[in-house]
Amino acid sequence: MNIVLGHTQYGKAETHVVRVFRDHEPHEIVDYVVSVAVTGDFTDVHLTGDNARCLTTDAMKNTVNAYAKEAGDAVRQPESFAAALARHFVADVPQVERARIQIDATPWDRLPSGGQPHPHAFSKRGSYVRTVTVTDDGTTAHVVSGVRDLVVLKTTDSEFHGFYEERYTTLAPTTDRIMATSVTAQWLHTDTDVDWGKSHDRVLATLSGTFAGHHSFALQQTLHAMGDAIITEQPEIAEVRFSLPNKHHFLVDLSPFGVENHQEVFHADDRPYGYIEGTVRRDDAPDPGPDAFDPGQGW
Amino acid sequence: MNIVLGHTQYGKAETHVVRVFRDHEPHEIVDYVVSVAVTGDFTDVHLTGDNARCLTTDAMKNTVNAYAKEAGDAVRQPESFAAALARHFVADVPQVERARIQIDATPWDRLPSGGQPHPHAFSKRGSYVRTVTVTDDGTTAHVVSGVRDLVVLKTTDSEFHGFYEERYTTLAPTTDRIMATSVTAQWLHTDTDVDWGKSHDRVLATLSGTFAGHHSFALQQTLHAMGDAIITEQPEIAEVRFSLPNKHHFLVDLSPFGVENHQEVFHADDRPYGYIEGTVRRDDAPDPGPDAFDPGQGW
Amino acid sequence: MNIVLGHTQYGKAETHVVRVFRDHEPHEIVDYVVSVAVTGDFTDVHLTGDNARCLTTDAMKNTVNAYAKEAGDAVRQPESFAAALARHFVADVPQVERARIQIDATPWDRLPSGGQPHPHAFSKRGSYVRTVTVTDDGTTAHVVSGVRDLVVLKTTDSEFHGFYEERYTTLAPTTDRIMATSVTAQWLHTDTDVDWGKSHDRVLATLSGTFAGHHSFALQQTLHAMGDAIITEQPEIAEVRFSLPNKHHFLVDLSPFGVENHQEVFHADDRPYGYIEGTVRRDDAPDPGPDAFDPGQGW
Amino acid sequence: MNIVLGHTQYGKAETHVVRVFRDHEPHEIVDYVVSVAVTGDFTDVHLTGDNARCLTTDAMKNTVNAYAKEAGDAVRQPESFAAALARHFVADVPQVERARIQIDATPWDRLPSGGQPHPHAFSKRGSYVRTVTVTDDGTTAHVVSGVRDLVVLKTTDSEFHGFYEERYTTLAPTTDRIMATSVTAQWLHTDTDVDWGKSHDRVLATLSGTFAGHHSFALQQTLHAMGDAIITEQPEIAEVRFSLPNKHHFLVDLSPFGVENHQEVFHADDRPYGYIEGTVRRDDAPDPGPDAFDPGQGW
Repeated sequence: MNIVLGHTQYGKAETHVVRVFRDHEPHEIVDYVVSVAVTGDFTDVHLTGDNARCLTTDAMKNTVNAYAKEAGDAVRQPESFAAALARHFVADVPQVERARIQIDATPWDRLPSGGQPHPHAFSKRGSYVRTVTVTDDGTTAHVVSGVRDLVVLKTTDSEFHGFYEERYTTLAPTTDRIMATSVTAQWLHTDTDVDWGKSHDRVLATLSGTFAGHHSFALQQTLHAMGDAIITEQPEIAEVRFSLPNKHHFLVDLSPFGVENHQEVFHADDRPYGYIEGTVRRDDAPDPGPDAFDPGQGW
Repeated sequence: MNIVLGHTQYGKAETHVVRVFRDHEPHEIVDYVVSVAVTGDFTDVHLTGDNARCLTTDAMKNTVNAYAKEAGDAVRQPESFAAALARHFVADVPQVERARIQIDATPWDRLPSGGQPHPHAFSKRGSYVRTVTVTDDGTTAHVVSGVRDLVVLKTTDSEFHGFYEERYTTLAPTTDRIMATSVTAQWLHTDTDVDWGKSHDRVLATLSGTFAGHHSFALQQTLHAMGDAIITEQPEIAEVRFSLPNKHHFLVDLSPFGVENHQEVFHADDRPYGYIEGTVRRDDAPDPGPDAFDPGQGW
Repeated sequence: MNIVLGHTQYGKAETHVVRVFRDHEPHEIVDYVVSVAVTGDFTDVHLTGDNARCLTTDAMKNTVNAYAKEAGDAVRQPESFAAALARHFVADVPQVERARIQIDATPWDRLPSGGQPHPHAFSKRGSYVRTVTVTDDGTTAHVVSGVRDLVVLKTTDSEFHGFYEERYTTLAPTTDRIMATSVTAQWLHTDTDVDWGKSHDRVLATLSGTFAGHHSFALQQTLHAMGDAIITEQPEIAEVRFSLPNKHHFLVDLSPFGVENHQEVFHADDRPYGYIEGTVRRDDAPDPGPDAFDPGQGW
Repeated sequence: MNIVLGHTQYGKAETHVVRVFRDHEPHEIVDYVVSVAVTGDFTDVHLTGDNARCLTTDAMKNTVNAYAKEAGDAVRQPESFAAALARHFVADVPQVERARIQIDATPWDRLPSGGQPHPHAFSKRGSYVRTVTVTDDGTTAHVVSGVRDLVVLKTTDSEFHGFYEERYTTLAPTTDRIMATSVTAQWLHTDTDVDWGKSHDRVLATLSGTFAGHHSFALQQTLHAMGDAIITEQPEIAEVRFSLPNKHHFLVDLSPFGVENHQEVFHADDRPYGYIEGTVRRDDAPDPGPDAFDPGQGW
């Protein structure tokens, strides 16, 4: 029996760079938290501390910052910025065999000023984080877009009954409940000649519209409906992965106080929560392998 | 020397109640995290564990939930809901001498569906939390509205120079920088016959418009300009208190890489941060005493 | 009616400095997150953006870092380090009238190595944060020590019954429950010629021993017992302020599954929670005024 | 092209159960946050909302709570408790093909009281979270133990130089630096007839002792040394996976103030941070497949 080194990866995580485009009025900004992870032959670093092949994570931070200027128009969308960075590490650093770039992009809205959008002033949207993971192994680059912490809720059109019953089942069935979740989703593109901003907005519109309009018998069913609608609407998307916490809203029993509660007063509970995860995909989609999606989604 | 009991207060913190108004289409919702704190003569509880005068915090939670139905139209705005709750504890529980109700209200927006706002489906706004503190001592109720975590940024129209210099001063003066902050503010009303929703929206519009339009020589000056504008616009507001972290955006030195950086690429730093706090008030405003504002703002 | 500037304060928050003492074996470290806030006549900064009297918050950060070397042995304890910093700002910067220094000190323990404490390697204790607030107005310095996030729990010796009952009271009385809280406490010293490390350890020992040994009829009673014991044990402490969330552990009803639960299986709930706050003080203690205690404790 | 359902899983996340063992003095407690995820044929739930095969997540919560009593001595260690739960879901619920149980276990220490450990009173250790992931597919159960947020630091015996240099490399080499990290690690057992408590303590002792005693030329080298030592010491462990943020401590330049800084004063930075991840394994270890380790570690 020998003890050996298995899979490794390393990089600089969470470089927070803000780029201002100020050549023309109005100013534009992008706000990215960029994480770099590379794999390759770094055995010596681990076994002997010989760093001759070790690209410093400090240099990766410098690269992210410099590319925020050097990458030109690619900086304007997180997908193209991540692709440029991944390509650099794989192409320009010989010992890097695969690079994965993850970006959390914060959307900003223009502040209103005198009835007009202000040319220099912004407020953080806050209603979700836009995410990107690009993985480039030197041959193929997988581009995965996403959203995190998009919290949605519907006050009706949600039922849950007819479920499996066994010894530990005590839940009462319901034909009308609040359904709420905080959407984390990632979707794989099969085309990279895409207007990334429009594509992202369209996915969010489809996702939100489906959540709103779908009469649900289970959060799982809503998940599938959202994924199906996204791919139907944008067939260049091959696969969508969802993680949907079921943010339980429990009807409060007000009868001890002589107060009726017709689906009006709810306790929004924190923990535990149902956690529904699933994939919807085109049956002709290529298998992206285990590395394309951000593993931080947790499955 | 004797050891004595000083100031005490207690209550139930962070009851998270969601109320759905579903009598008419479209549905409406409010989403409140409610904290109750009462003061009064609770000496026996502390000294001997005699709980005869101790209103349970569990009953306070029940009251918050029941009032989400019983308080009628007062539930629709956090100011009026907090006032109704505070009044109840002071008026209906003899041993309570003062009640303070704090509410964190989450704004929700209607999801679009087929080009129209959907009648039952919502997404969390996320760009700020609306706050309320009402303190009622049985005679007077102070109503303080507020906002937390409203993140705003401007890419120009901000200078900082001419400052005091001493041994530890190394900062370079600048005539053009990014200014960004996460606004926490509270404001005291002298009139309670107010359309609370409209009042809150108007304060936010004034605050945002002033931040956007003001040419700033210091975050302190921007603070004052925002407070001045709010009270000028809504003279029933007696006093505004701000806590403004200076969210530093440092220009990245790209010269080692031969890249010019004309105020374009910034590192958004986490810590440390400047922290600017201040009060703007009407000189004829009544002194609200030490208890009206939420002490959690930290000053 | 005029609009005027009220109370203001500003400074640099959360400078995270780690000082290594390496002149002798074994090495020692302190780990401080330091926040500076000063008050004084900074009207011009607010009204006109004239910064001639504005000490930059960047200089405050520099001062914290330089003092981590220059302040000599005072650096070894957060109380003495905070006092040295407060004194500097008040004494050396003419326009500063009052300085408040807050420190969050992280305790580190030596890692064991071969059965001995290692001379250079440490692990973060993690069981609480040690806090300090020093306020110096040029004449008097108030030193307030504290602890935050010290989570304690007892499995018995806690009862709660005989409480006040009204319309919204549904809680069942109990003669045996889990009592758990996360202690935040601050205490004011009337003597500053103190071995701060020993004093802090002694307060924590008294607090913990009293929590453990006290048979409780209410968390309020436990609060009082802890404060009383601390001042009795260390009479130079004039006043202790506690904020004690009641971390509810609810007995789970396992009867639907035919399982008995004799105070054995509990659901540890997150929100809402009871929140018990109170002061215990010497009746001959000086009034420290409104500024000595860290207002971030929230009352 | 058809749109199809891919991989799915669901369950109840973060049921927080505290079990008191009170048959004998002294009392003992365990504190678990338990997440359940099952896979199987739940296609109907997704496609049509037919819930006939859907075990409710509420029943999973009930099961966790009931098993905290019913599972007997298996409750005392998170590995055996997780194994019992996983086995139940796979064996007793026909449509479940694989169950994964994750537990975050909070260690508690006895409070001292009169020089003795108190029999009923505890404080939260806080220095790390003990983690467990058990995956059972009906045939094989993989048991993976772990630790999260174990923060360690050494003040010397760490160098970093001789690294690869390219266009974006500006880091200065160093022969003496602070090295600090927050250890997240998971390790796979090939034997399940283990005293889990002793095994966990021994891994932590090996890990800590190696971190302390190893003279490091790179955090990667320290990672390998820790993994190697763990498997050498406990050969039933087949594989260890580490995620190690490099918590940078930057030497502060005090020369502008005429103050020398011989590796004494450091700025503990938050972001960005190096992120070093790697696997050390026995070369004869079985491949656990993609599902044994908690994917939340992120790789």
